[in-house]
Amino acid sequence: MVHQACGFVGLGSMGLAMAVNLVKAGFDLCGFDIAPAAVEKLVQAGGKAAGSVADAARGQKLLLVVVAKAEQAESVLYGEGGAVGVLAVGATVVLHSTVPPAYARELGERLEAAGHRLLDAPISGGRVGAEAGNLSIMASGSPAAFDSAGAAFEVMAGKVYRLGDTPGTGSTVKMINQHLAGVHIAAAAEAMALGARAGADPATLFEVISNSAGNSWMFTNRVPHMLERDFSPRSAVEIFVKDLGIVLETGKELRFPLPIAASAHQQYLAAAGAGFGYEDDAAVVKVYERLANIEVKG
Amino acid sequence: MVHQACGFVGLGSMGLAMAVNLVKAGFDLCGFDIAPAAVEKLVQAGGKAAGSVADAARGQKLLLVVVAKAEQAESVLYGEGGAVGVLAVGATVVLHSTVPPAYARELGERLEAAGHRLLDAPISGGRVGAEAGNLSIMASGSPAAFDSAGAAFEVMAGKVYRLGDTPGTGSTVKMINQHLAGVHIAAAAEAMALGARAGADPATLFEVISNSAGNSWMFTNRVPHMLERDFSPRSAVEIFVKDLGIVLETGKELRFPLPIAASAHQQYLAAAGAGFGYEDDAAVVKVYERLANIEVKG
Repeated sequence: MVHQACGFVGLGSMGLAMAVNLVKAGFDLCGFDIAPAAVEKLVQAGGKAAGSVADAARGQKLLLVVVAKAEQAESVLYGEGGAVGVLAVGATVVLHSTVPPAYARELGERLEAAGHRLLDAPISGGRVGAEAGNLSIMASGSPAAFDSAGAAFEVMAGKVYRLGDTPGTGSTVKMINQHLAGVHIAAAAEAMALGARAGADPATLFEVISNSAGNSWMFTNRVPHMLERDFSPRSAVEIFVKDLGIVLETGKELRFPLPIAASAHQQYLAAAGAGFGYEDDAAVVKVYERLANIEVKG
Repeated sequence: MVHQACGFVGLGSMGLAMAVNLVKAGFDLCGFDIAPAAVEKLVQAGGKAAGSVADAARGQKLLLVVVAKAEQAESVLYGEGGAVGVLAVGATVVLHSTVPPAYARELGERLEAAGHRLLDAPISGGRVGAEAGNLSIMASGSPAAFDSAGAAFEVMAGKVYRLGDTPGTGSTVKMINQHLAGVHIAAAAEAMALGARAGADPATLFEVISNSAGNSWMFTNRVPHMLERDFSPRSAVEIFVKDLGIVLETGKELRFPLPIAASAHQQYLAAAGAGFGYEDDAAVVKVYERLANIEVKG
């Protein structure tokens, strides 16, 4: 058993699973979420409830943050009653959210100026990977920050990529992964819908393509959601509205044109606008289905 | 050993390898190509040289066509001195080219009206798969057409997908594969180039992404060509100018919008316009590299 204390903020579908696994492994974990029901689930698993962000962070040497967006991370750390003012001296903040690389870089500098350390540590693997303690973590930060987070990573991750000493690199690598993941799901939707419109049997298409050069990790994983018409959110359309948004915003800052990511982003926007934002990201196929009056069903 | 006669037209990098394998397996094969050097290589491997398309096709019950485009197939079959007029009665034409599904469907009807059969049988696997006798064949046509081609498929293919009784379905499935393959290579180029521009190490990016949810068959296969700066053509940029062109033309006929395929196609056009059309398709990365003055090298 590990005997390490930590604060934990953000008990969504991934965060709660990660926190529960840490509690089971022996962590003295104090968790907060804006949804009281999530905190209640943590308590049932043996964790401690915090009544606020500050309660979760107070006196901690280690704080894990698993919120969805940079805006939320900013509020958790520097908002009213934020964590930074109440952490122990020389604490390590582990930010697991997918945020713009420029934000992670700048946040690392601000925390360092306050005597703390940032580990820029976005995660991949979804709720399934979080529950199984089999996440991939794409991390960058100082060796001391890696040391502080090491026991927790051992519990939560199947693979930790150690990408350098400076916050920002972890988020850059995650951003590139999200570029491809987002494009591949939207491309799978576009291709499967074209196939259905052209008269091919969707189940046969899936079988052939998933064994051919047109395959992708996302094609194999998400097309079954389309075929089974199961759009319960494993990961939602809005996640790619956000993550391809980070890709495009970074491209804009760097003056780097990204026509393919931009096309895919428009399709997620269309899906969200049509009311599918909180369905599974495979629901991007409905954009094509609605226009052509077909279904990718098999 | 197989003892079956066949005509063979189109001895390019894939066609020659396929024809040589058939000769080695015992086929009495008579081959033609517009490039005399290719015919000469076939003869060295034990095949018979034809002086023209008509010579290759005359009296054959089985004709394999491995040209690049529908226009070439049309010329081989129905052009001046074309094959259709000289085949044996009730011959099977196996068209291995990637052509518009509508063309394959219509060609099937025309050959049937002339007393012949078409097997719509596009191939996947590149020169490497052709040499190893390990192609994937996505085929549709009558059971009799499949019977005629069976022994040859046994020699050339690792996997034969039998997709229905009507020409057109094989080409539809191949078209969907090419949609995804083409988008995935261009997306790999865009993402790797963005990563390089944002300061990530390309070799590290490749290692992380190829083990993550952003992976695709093409990412794993083509990014090493970029990292090694090896753009000798395994499959050329111009192939995707053509194949995504088929995708978009089919989308236009069906009034089915394909924004992601259209973006990717523009990048292949840009690569071809910049002079990289006959380099490896991974050279689509140079479009991004030239604009941003970076290199995806590792």
